[in-house]
Amino acid sequence: MESPLEYAIGIDVGGTTAKFGIVNHRGEISNRGNLPTNEHDDVNRFINELYDEIQPAIKEIGGPDLIKGIGVGAPNGNYYNGTIEYAPNLLWRGVIPLAKLITDKFNKPCTLTNDANAAAVGEMMYGAARGMRDFIMITLGTGVGSGIIANGQLILRHDGFAGELGHTVIRPKGRLHSGTGMRGTLETYASATGIAITANELLDQRSKEKSLLRKTPHKKMDSKVVYEAAMKGDKIAKDVFKFTGQILGEALANFVMFSSPEAIILFGGVCKAGKLLMDPVKKHMEKNLLPIFQNKVKLLFSELKESDAAILGASALVWEIKPEPK
Amino acid sequence: MESPLEYAIGIDVGGTTAKFGIVNHRGEISNRGNLPTNEHDDVNRFINELYDEIQPAIKEIGGPDLIKGIGVGAPNGNYYNGTIEYAPNLLWRGVIPLAKLITDKFNKPCTLTNDANAAAVGEMMYGAARGMRDFIMITLGTGVGSGIIANGQLILRHDGFAGELGHTVIRPKGRLHSGTGMRGTLETYASATGIAITANELLDQRSKEKSLLRKTPHKKMDSKVVYEAAMKGDKIAKDVFKFTGQILGEALANFVMFSSPEAIILFGGVCKAGKLLMDPVKKHMEKNLLPIFQNKVKLLFSELKESDAAILGASALVWEIKPEPK
Repeated sequence: MESPLEYAIGIDVGGTTAKFGIVNHRGEISNRGNLPTNEHDDVNRFINELYDEIQPAIKEIGGPDLIKGIGVGAPNGNYYNGTIEYAPNLLWRGVIPLAKLITDKFNKPCTLTNDANAAAVGEMMYGAARGMRDFIMITLGTGVGSGIIANGQLILRHDGFAGELGHTVIRPKGRLHSGTGMRGTLETYASATGIAITANELLDQRSKEKSLLRKTPHKKMDSKVVYEAAMKGDKIAKDVFKFTGQILGEALANFVMFSSPEAIILFGGVCKAGKLLMDPVKKHMEKNLLPIFQNKVKLLFSELKESDAAILGASALVWEIKPEPK
Repeated sequence: MESPLEYAIGIDVGGTTAKFGIVNHRGEISNRGNLPTNEHDDVNRFINELYDEIQPAIKEIGGPDLIKGIGVGAPNGNYYNGTIEYAPNLLWRGVIPLAKLITDKFNKPCTLTNDANAAAVGEMMYGAARGMRDFIMITLGTGVGSGIIANGQLILRHDGFAGELGHTVIRPKGRLHSGTGMRGTLETYASATGIAITANELLDQRSKEKSLLRKTPHKKMDSKVVYEAAMKGDKIAKDVFKFTGQILGEALANFVMFSSPEAIILFGGVCKAGKLLMDPVKKHMEKNLLPIFQNKVKLLFSELKESDAAILGASALVWEIKPEPK
């Protein structure tokens, strides 16, 4: 029997910040906080700082006995080992046994998975995917991540890693991804980074055409600038979202024919573009689906605050922790 | 408790023939038989013929009381409804309630799924994927089909259909698929049909180059002719497999980054090409994977006889049938 007075700590580890919160069984987050992850490369210092930072929160909810466990979402998180492995966006290098370090320090069981998976679980328990057993979560931020739920379970590989839809090739021989060396992957187009590149490319290709985007130097171009120009009716900015939406729509069609989900949930900063993104995504997804799949898959935006989804998802993993035999 | 004296009937419904067999708990097939599916468009006549055809086999193994149920693999088979829906390669049009028709005629529970899914289950229980919980089965025949097992379960959509990896787009704006109207899908290249098209294209493009394949008129080209010429060292024929293997390898890389399987099992007539196909597939799959996925995924040929896999897989579904409450 689970006590209604139990809490989970959810932690979302990102490249610049780790966010945490204390979560109850109803998915309500209290006592939020955050601390930097990019200040030093010693993960033990991070764990110590995290411990100190969370103590007041733990006291406030009634002490450590009420904490059932700690759930963590982190890039390249391995569910089975509890490790972060070779995460390109973190200062901690190599294989980091984060779950073990947290358990040793906090004396609580810790479950870890990758950040997009955690967000998918959060969405299933508390967001747009409530009650769904088969859906795909696509996170559109600096990069493109994915979490796949099938038969009500996260799809994880036998070695604990999950799929990486952002690195599937959607334009063979296409744009180079500087981080991976691969060409034409979804992430090179549909991430915030990709949107800025597309904007600069279109500005260069259509050099005689007026555009609000010309006020922004190439190096400062970002998806927010493009969004604001598009909302003012700028043609090139609108074409950036048309192109991005087309590529993403084609990719989603392939994903649909892979696992035939009930819904695809889009999540992350790029979603702020709303209909500018969703309309071309929907059009090109449907256009590239076999008739048997058409007009069946719901295309939804996340219903969770971006900062909440991974904390909630990470905390949800805690409720699954089985008690150790004594 | 299951009686060791129970049997399942497994049926593999194809475009020209339905094959059946009686299967025991160890996956041994006895009393095989087959009957045509392309002689008339009345599915009831097929069911009656099937019933008559199987009766001697049922008698031989000890009578209908020993038959636990009937499992069917069929193109466009819907697991939840037990229907075949709009299968392009069958004469039976529209939505066919095949499982219900079989249950009514045989007075036995009947479970139905698509043929590639049935083959995947067969491979998991009795073939190259024994003991695996996460793998993808790709069937390379006249068309390209797929069955995905994750967490030890078939990936099925909430509406009972499964993924169709053969219809994912691998070359945007590429070769036209005459059946679906889509362009650049995996099936247009990696099926036996696609191999024949590639051979004819290369013969036309390299019209001055000698080739054993020139003895075969374009309309009679098939993957067997190409295979035999390649085995004799024919350059164009070998290039056909290189090209086919490259496309399939790139597609498999995307699939790996989707569900991160332990293995990919290749199955069907095209696999007779052996190393001619496998070497370029392996090369281009690895080349298109993120480092975190490289050199981890087993690429295997099916260990089951082609005619057995779907019968075994279909029969395996029978053991899952729960008894009806009485």
